[in-house]
Amino acid sequence: MAVVPLMRDEEAGAEALAVFEDIRAKRQTDYVNNFWRALAHDPATLKATWERLQVVMAPGALDPLVKELIYIAVSTANGCDYCVHSHTAAARAKGMTPAMHAELLAVIALASQTNALATALSVPVDERFRA
Amino acid sequence: MAVVPLMRDEEAGAEALAVFEDIRAKRQTDYVNNFWRALAHDPATLKATWERLQVVMAPGALDPLVKELIYIAVSTANGCDYCVHSHTAAARAKGMTPAMHAELLAVIALASQTNALATALSVPVDERFRA
Amino acid sequence: MAVVPLMRDEEAGAEALAVFEDIRAKRQTDYVNNFWRALAHDPATLKATWERLQVVMAPGALDPLVKELIYIAVSTANGCDYCVHSHTAAARAKGMTPAMHAELLAVIALASQTNALATALSVPVDERFRA
Amino acid sequence: MAVVPLMRDEEAGAEALAVFEDIRAKRQTDYVNNFWRALAHDPATLKATWERLQVVMAPGALDPLVKELIYIAVSTANGCDYCVHSHTAAARAKGMTPAMHAELLAVIALASQTNALATALSVPVDERFRA
Amino acid sequence: MAVVPLMRDEEAGAEALAVFEDIRAKRQTDYVNNFWRALAHDPATLKATWERLQVVMAPGALDPLVKELIYIAVSTANGCDYCVHSHTAAARAKGMTPAMHAELLAVIALASQTNALATALSVPVDERFRA
Amino acid sequence: MAVVPLMRDEEAGAEALAVFEDIRAKRQTDYVNNFWRALAHDPATLKATWERLQVVMAPGALDPLVKELIYIAVSTANGCDYCVHSHTAAARAKGMTPAMHAELLAVIALASQTNALATALSVPVDERFRA
Repeated sequence: MAVVPLMRDEEAGAEALAVFEDIRAKRQTDYVNNFWRALAHDPATLKATWERLQVVMAPGALDPLVKELIYIAVSTANGCDYCVHSHTAAARAKGMTPAMHAELLAVIALASQTNALATALSVPVDERFRA
Repeated sequence: MAVVPLMRDEEAGAEALAVFEDIRAKRQTDYVNNFWRALAHDPATLKATWERLQVVMAPGALDPLVKELIYIAVSTANGCDYCVHSHTAAARAKGMTPAMHAELLAVIALASQTNALATALSVPVDERFRA
Repeated sequence: MAVVPLMRDEEAGAEALAVFEDIRAKRQTDYVNNFWRALAHDPATLKATWERLQVVMAPGALDPLVKELIYIAVSTANGCDYCVHSHTAAARAKGMTPAMHAELLAVIALASQTNALATALSVPVDERFRA
Repeated sequence: MAVVPLMRDEEAGAEALAVFEDIRAKRQTDYVNNFWRALAHDPATLKATWERLQVVMAPGALDPLVKELIYIAVSTANGCDYCVHSHTAAARAKGMTPAMHAELLAVIALASQTNALATALSVPVDERFRA
Repeated sequence: MAVVPLMRDEEAGAEALAVFEDIRAKRQTDYVNNFWRALAHDPATLKATWERLQVVMAPGALDPLVKELIYIAVSTANGCDYCVHSHTAAARAKGMTPAMHAELLAVIALASQTNALATALSVPVDERFRA
Repeated sequence: MAVVPLMRDEEAGAEALAVFEDIRAKRQTDYVNNFWRALAHDPATLKATWERLQVVMAPGALDPLVKELIYIAVSTANGCDYCVHSHTAAARAKGMTPAMHAELLAVIALASQTNALATALSVPVDERFRA
């Protein structure tokens, strides 16, 4: 159980419920996942987060699947188990194949390793890498 | 300055020098960046890291630019300033436009934010997200 | 289950038991929470931690509730699920309202986001911010 | 130098410049700090971040100084040197005394320590801490 | 349950099975732990990780138990619950006593605390600490 | 420059000065490093930290060099550049050879990599690893 109860539809106020309905409509599903139900105790942050998500994750210079892969990478490095699960599911829904997943994990693992080495050695940034 | 001196070509032993030469040949440049020069104090790890990097970052189910974006995302979340610089430069060399960079940062920022919210609320993983 | 068994009163040696009794007396409760029971395998660290906690969390220039909010913020950024739970409970016991909790989470989320942006951009510190 | 050049007023487009002007007006200073100048390469994120900051950091159930303390705590745990500097300066401007700063740091240090202990011991969450 | 199913022997392909068999032979046990079974969906990374582990964790200038202690320290700081469990078990199997475990945790806790203080104060590196 | 000025001897009050003198006596050097000078603005935390350091880092079930290696590992994972520098210097002073340093870094790198993989896969803890 979360630090707060997951808010059910019948407990939600008008503002939270409107977000739940928008999630259902945009995602074409009846299911509202736990993250939104936990966040619903603060309808303003719920709304702001949901709206920002739609703007940021929309197709643009990067396609939505690539954005999900980046999301998984950040969530892994931040150790967010919930987010790793929800965005791995989202990436699969957007077309991530097992081969893509495997390569994603290999890059995350390699980066974690060289991040640690660069930090442990305190390597100075090369002049040519500076803007 | 790093925790160890950056190893110059004339200080490097045969194994480290062979890696430096391979970096130059594969990247078609005379420049060997500081990370490899710091790592060269341990030729075995230098060689293993450079070889793993080539395997992992090669084209596959994900293209090399996408892999660089993922690398930047991990490096940011891990707070590795050196790696953020070197892989932002690498991503640009592989075609990352300013618009792509902007979207990458927006996704990283959003993920960092929702990671924190999910953790602060200790949201339980939805059954449907489990394999 | 933890990496070590949670130490019950009847298993604890004199030094650990004295800390358990002090926790009960100071907190006016019979309940000793899991953190202390896991830590009790090392009575010296148990005692040092409990004593330091009392010094640091006492009223001072900052009031105890504010200190709990700061504790939650650090625990969230460090991804410590246990600590998020225990200090959210402690903050509530010291008067944290749902509105305060909501604002705390909004600040944590915002900071996580701008931390990531500043790191991904490697923004140099303004001269005026240096002591 | 940052990963991107810091954008000067004369280089900024209309949308970024409008944010710069709003920062100047709201903060009653001519100075726009480096974070905003680095972020200005993406005017949409610049604007969204600045607007969200004003909403989140405004007086509410928590006062603005407490919010800055929380911001410093998160920035420290995330290892964001820029943010530690800028928000320590902001906290001082809002009235943080040296005694408050000292207590803030003592809480951050204690939380970092017990976070590590709870994680290293994998302490299970007490039932009474769950919502 | 993991983000991927744990691969059983009868589901594994030849390359993954060969690694499982090598784990069994080298560790002189029939048990293959969950990490390897989750990783087995990508036989190439499974093999590379297992081989690297044997090279890195072998006796050398540091003895294997010391290496396990270092592994636990990193896993704790990175918040990896699985790794804390598996390497605490491995350290015990290699001779870690309760007294050693207690001292390990005390060092991890102290380092976490002074890391936070150094970061919150942005202490500049002393010239004499630079290579 | 730090977030606070580094306190010189002539600026320090009696309590901070006594700690500076104790550092000089115990370490048999005239040099007091920047960490302690930054911390001296809060003499109580300065004293508590210095005293705890002596207790924790003393010879015991683990020898002092091993404790320094663990300190470096935690500092690397937490991204504390100051601490990486100061404890790498301390480890060398206590006998860390280049070969030990190389193996330390190889373990840190490997752990960082498998931590990321275990988190990205959300591998469930094996029953046999639980206490």
